[in-house]
Formats: sequence, structure tokens, C-alpha cells
Amino acid sequence: MLRRVDAEQSVAELMADIGRKARAAAQPLSIAPPDQKTAALLAMADAIDRRSAEILTANKRDMANGLEAGMAASLLDRLKLDDKRIAGISESIRTIAELKDPVGDIIAEWDRPNGLHIERVRTPLGVIGVIYESRPNVTADAGALCLKSGNAVILRGGSDSIHSSNAICEALLEGLEVSGLPKDAIQLVPTTDRAAVGEMLKGLGGNLDVIIPRGGKSLVARVQSEARVPVFAHLEGLCHLYIDASADLAMARKIAVNAKMRRTGVCGSAETLLVDRLIAPSHLVPLLEDLRAAGCEIRGDSAVTELFADAKRATDEDWSTEYLDAIISVKLVDGIGGAIGHINHYSSHHTEAVIAEDLHVVERFFNEIDSAILLHNASTQFADGGEFGMGAEIGIATGKMHARGPVGVEQLTSFKYRVRGNGQTRP
Amino acid sequence: MLRRVDAEQSVAELMADIGRKARAAAQPLSIAPPDQKTAALLAMADAIDRRSAEILTANKRDMANGLEAGMAASLLDRLKLDDKRIAGISESIRTIAELKDPVGDIIAEWDRPNGLHIERVRTPLGVIGVIYESRPNVTADAGALCLKSGNAVILRGGSDSIHSSNAICEALLEGLEVSGLPKDAIQLVPTTDRAAVGEMLKGLGGNLDVIIPRGGKSLVARVQSEARVPVFAHLEGLCHLYIDASADLAMARKIAVNAKMRRTGVCGSAETLLVDRLIAPSHLVPLLEDLRAAGCEIRGDSAVTELFADAKRATDEDWSTEYLDAIISVKLVDGIGGAIGHINHYSSHHTEAVIAEDLHVVERFFNEIDSAILLHNASTQFADGGEFGMGAEIGIATGKMHARGPVGVEQLTSFKYRVRGNGQTRP
Repeated sequence: MLRRVDAEQSVAELMADIGRKARAAAQPLSIAPPDQKTAALLAMADAIDRRSAEILTANKRDMANGLEAGMAASLLDRLKLDDKRIAGISESIRTIAELKDPVGDIIAEWDRPNGLHIERVRTPLGVIGVIYESRPNVTADAGALCLKSGNAVILRGGSDSIHSSNAICEALLEGLEVSGLPKDAIQLVPTTDRAAVGEMLKGLGGNLDVIIPRGGKSLVARVQSEARVPVFAHLEGLCHLYIDASADLAMARKIAVNAKMRRTGVCGSAETLLVDRLIAPSHLVPLLEDLRAAGCEIRGDSAVTELFADAKRATDEDWSTEYLDAIISVKLVDGIGGAIGHINHYSSHHTEAVIAEDLHVVERFFNEIDSAILLHNASTQFADGGEFGMGAEIGIATGKMHARGPVGVEQLTSFKYRVRGNGQTRP
Repeated sequence: MLRRVDAEQSVAELMADIGRKARAAAQPLSIAPPDQKTAALLAMADAIDRRSAEILTANKRDMANGLEAGMAASLLDRLKLDDKRIAGISESIRTIAELKDPVGDIIAEWDRPNGLHIERVRTPLGVIGVIYESRPNVTADAGALCLKSGNAVILRGGSDSIHSSNAICEALLEGLEVSGLPKDAIQLVPTTDRAAVGEMLKGLGGNLDVIIPRGGKSLVARVQSEARVPVFAHLEGLCHLYIDASADLAMARKIAVNAKMRRTGVCGSAETLLVDRLIAPSHLVPLLEDLRAAGCEIRGDSAVTELFADAKRATDEDWSTEYLDAIISVKLVDGIGGAIGHINHYSSHHTEAVIAEDLHVVERFFNEIDSAILLHNASTQFADGGEFGMGAEIGIATGKMHARGPVGVEQLTSFKYRVRGNGQTRP
């Protein structure tokens, strides 16, 4: 499927053609019966398993190219596939196959005094563009989630994983074919030319309804600033954990370590710990000792460094840094008001948690902070579609439009109104 | 409140300042208790009534300027206020005051096996920009709807109505003041310089979350093509009415006349009538005679002009023309498949209606057409937030993102997740 872009066809023409094909596929896909989409997904998973040798061969080629190009070890690890990872990919597709089909769901319905019955029902969005870095599994996850939600998808993977992504995509296409769905429902951009991304950001002449970037901050920042179509994404997860004076100390200690250290590289990892000044004398040292014992570097304001000598002094930059590493910034604040003020100023509106027994504090935290996910007495690391019960997600969005928080199959839908009458005219 | 833009302050600086003030007002507004917002709205309505002489004086000034500038009679009529229209404005604010407050509504909630309780709750969007033509009542409607939904609003009215809009806005500000809400919650752009619109389209440095254009096609087209923030709007309402072979002829005749002729200038007015070829010999002439008798010009394809001599011959352009006038284009189609094909090709995805007794036909119409509103056995003129039971609307959106169909107070909200735990950490 890797087409060579011939000299006669510019990248702009290639992408416009992909957009037209995606739009044409979106219509039959939008009315495909749930069973047909499920069958396609199960066939895709089987094809992934059956073609695993082929996929591994393609991946070896990408890995060899990466090594030769001097790719960093962490990136090579993300790129690498093995039998276990391939089994994980097909398993993930099977999980998506089993999700409830969102299309046609009646979200709300009501009657009007004149006898009209109004239903608001879910519909696919249309054509979704996914732009991602060199993680071959995203090809399968994004393709499967978009199909389940009745959308056509245009996949633009990282150039370093092009052979792996292509081999995986071939398996997805086999699933489309055996189930009788249009093959253009899933298209992998067949060129590594960066101009292809530029064309997607311009919206492919109206044939792209939304873009989902999956990757590092620079990719997301470029997409958010240049895209002429809606974007579902978060630029960063600068998540806060606030320990109120009313907190249960044992719970706070357990959650602080989990929120920061369970996995430091995920967007739901806590980056700043705010502690109520009232309880600093008793609570701060145990909290920070636990974090230090777990291998975390502590950067505190002057009040923190006074109480905890092992803390480095935080600079202004620390309060707006997403470390994605075993580092945490720590500040004393004047109760819930101080916590809210700090969070509303520095937060990336992703996820924040409060540890408190005082429910008035919790209500203020829930009401006055405008982030996608707010948690009470639970770890910020629950910021995840799977943990929310959505089954699978394609990312977490911090925008306020349409999708916010985990983006699962429901968030990949729009809606329309169906109105049933028996001859009503408007007076 | 009409500030003179002094030489030192550019329009860009003025608008940036308005954006910052709106953002600052949005936070307290987002947590204002429902009663406080209701009180503000009722005070606004009272202030409109009390200040009616003042508002009429301002309106006379706009009318005089309009007359002098040679404004068209239809535009002068839209601009003109009188006692009855002012009473309508305050009545409309009172209706909005009585709507259910959407902020804090729990849209969905569920429990997770680990004991986490997840709620999805409505939150305001933030700052809304409304760009509209010289209709003074939009100042009050838009201001009231945005306030009810907890949003700050920046109003940019037509320059021909600036004095009327300003007098109305003064009454709104009085309502904010007596109820203790931030006065920057509603700001009317105090300059008629068109560069102000350009600044809004650029998003006021991140301080504008959504733009709602209210006005003619050229205004909406400019906003949709240039805005760097989300837009809730429809460019046109190219609505279709399909009469299936299974239709009840009497119902079809009644609905066709209503859909086209009740009001021809509204977006929900039908522009194209599609008739199943099977029943053309018996049904077409009565349908078209009713329309002609109601004063409607008929433009048909060759099959239509053959059967109905008074029809003009439609050109290709007719199928994509929103007449907003007493003209209808008429075409014979091959059943529901032909109707769906025509509509999906020419529709503006606003509103379409099917008249049929065969429910399989209705289901295909409902499933296979991707427009915001689909009606069965009812007039397209029901495309209206009030008729949907939303109480009031700020417009109808045809985009697939976030708001689709009538945009009422619920559609002016976003949501966030509140998660309640008792010490959960993620394994």
C-alpha cells in the first residue's frame, strides 16, 4: 500500500485525493450496521495475529533505520514490536470490538405539546485525521476506535515507523475487506513528506472534520496553532494535588506517591503538590519523605525548603513545568482558596485532585476549578479513558468544545435531531 | 458607555483589553448561584421597561442616520424600535430568566468497580463573542442567554444600531450591578471600526472561546472562513421537503404550503420540494396549485414543467439556492433513494422533512441524511429552539462539533468530570 508519490502528483494532490476518498467512505460507514463493524474489527484482530511475522519483519526494518539514524533509546523502545506487543495490539482491537456501538444511540428524547416527538441521536463525526509519532500501536488503536464510531480515518504516523504502521494497516484493511466495508474507511498516508501534515492541518478542502494529534508537546503545539479544523488534544498535563488541612494523612501520603510516581511519563502524573499551610508542620515532612523514598526529587518554595532540608529551591519556572519525570514541585498555600488561586493560574486544565475530609472544601475545589477532570480522595493517575470505563481512548482533551477529558468512542460522535410528527404545521 | 477610542489606543489594544476583562469576569460568573443570575435577568428586563424612552431616543438617532445614509426599507424595519418591540425585548429576557439553569447539571454519572463515582457536569464555556447586524434586540437576547449559561459575552452589533444597542446594554449593565455580578460579564464593543471584528476572529489572545455570528450569509461566511476560534452558526438553510409515494396527499399539501410560505425569510423555510416520481401524475399538480395559490413561484425540472405548465424551468443553480423568498424549486426523484441522493448532494445540513406513511422510508430518511434536524410528517419551519422546547435560542448551528441544531442555554455550556473516591490509587 506504500505508494510512491510520482513526480506528476504533488503531495497536495495526493492528500486532496485521500480526503475525497475518506469523505466518500464516511457515508456508507455512517450507516453500517453495528454487527458489520464488530465483524470487521474481529477480522482485523485475527489478521494482526496471522500476519505477526510480516509485521515483525517490517518493524525490524524500521528499527534498523532508526538505529542507523541514531534514534534515542527511549524512542527505539516505543518503536519496537515483539510477539507480546503484537498480541497486545490485537487484544486492544478485540476490546474495542466489544464496546457498545455509539451510533444511533438516543441521547435524549421528549414530547412537545403539539405532539411532535423529538429525539437527539448520536451520529459519526465524519472524517477524523490522526497525526502521531512513531508508535506503531496507535495505527491499530486509532483505526479501530474511528471505525467503531462510524468515522473514516486518515492516519499519519511518524516517518520512523512507516513500515510497521503500513504492515499493521494492511491487516486492518483485510478486516474491512472481508466484512464488506469500504476500504477507504482507513487510509494510512503513504508518504513521509512533512507537507502531508500541512495539508491535513488545512482541512483537506473540507474533507476533514477533526484532527487528533498523539505525541509530544511540539507536535501538539504545532497542530493546535496551525489547524483550521477542530482539534481534540491536550498540550500538557500539568496536574496538581492539593492536601487540605482536613485531609487524612495516611491517605494523602499513599495518594501523593501514587499520583507522582506510579508512572511519571503519563499526562495524569502530578507535577505540583500543594499543601495547606495550617498542617505543614505535621504533614509536610512525612509526605515528602515518602516521595523521596520513592525516588522523587523535591523542589519547594522557601517555606518548604525550611521544613524539609532535602528539597531544592523551586524557581518560578517550576510551577509551570510538566516534568514527566521523577520530580515534583511543592508549595504551601493558604487553604482551599490559595490552592484554587494557584491551580487556576498555572494549570493546563487537565486533571487536579484534592485530598480532604471537609466536604465544603471539596465542593469549592469541584466548582471553582475549571479543569477537565477533578478528583476527590483519589489519585490523578485515574485520568484515563479505560479507568473511566470508556473501554479505550484515543487521548485526553483539554479544550472546552465537544470532547473534554478522555476521548473514547462516544466522544468521536456528533448528534442530530429526529422529529416525528403526524401532520404538524407551524402556526 | 460609548467610549471614544483615543489616538493612543489602537483597536487591537482596546479589544485585547475587552478580552482580558471578559476572561476575568467569566470566573466569578461561572460560580454565580442560579438565583443571582435570575435576579440579574429580571432586573435587566425591568430596566429595559423603565428606560424605554431613552432607548427609543437612541433608536431615533440610529433611524435618522440610516435614513440619511439611504438604508433599505427592510433594514430600517429591522432596526426600528417601538413600544411594542421594547416590551417584546423585556419579555424575552424574562422568558430566559425562567429557564432552568444549565450550570452544574449532572449530565451523566456512574460508578466504577474500584468505588470511584464519576459525574459529568455542565460548566459554562467561558467567553462568547456575538457578532451581529443591526438588530437591537439581539443585544438583549444574546446578553441574557450568555448570562443564564454563566458565560461572559462580548457583543459586537451592527454599526447602524450602535446607539440603540448601547442604550439596551446600559439596561443590561444595570441588572448586573444591582445583583452584584461583575459588570464586565456583558461588554458591548464601543467602536464601529471593522478592525474590532478582525480582532475577535483572531480570538483576543485566547480570551474568546467561541464566536456566534448572527446575520446574513456574507457575515457568516467571513466569520466561518477567518475565525481562529470555534464558530456556532449556519451559513444557509437550504431545506428540503420530500413527498414519498406513501404520503397522505392532504397532509403533504398542508405541510408543503406551511414549510415554504409560513415565513419565507427564515432559515427553516423549505427551498426545494422533491416528489416521488411514482405519484407525480396524481400528486404533483395539487401540491403545486396550492403553492401557487399561496403566492409562490414554481421552478421545476423538465418532468415538472411537463406536468405543470405554470412552472418555470429550473437551472442547475436553483438546486443550490436559498431563496428566502416566495420561490420553490421542484424536482421528481426516484423514491427515497433518489431523495437521499439529491439532499446529501445539495443540502446545507440544516433541516429536511419527509412526508410518508411507509416507516421504512422514514427510517432511511432519518439514518442516511446527515443534517442537524430531520422531520417526519411535520413542517421544516419547526426548526427553531423555541419550538424544540429550549425556551430561546441564539441561532441554529450546522457544524458537527459541540452545538448542532438550535443553540440554547445548554448548548452554551461545556462539561467537566467530578470524581469522588475514598483513597483510591491506581495499581
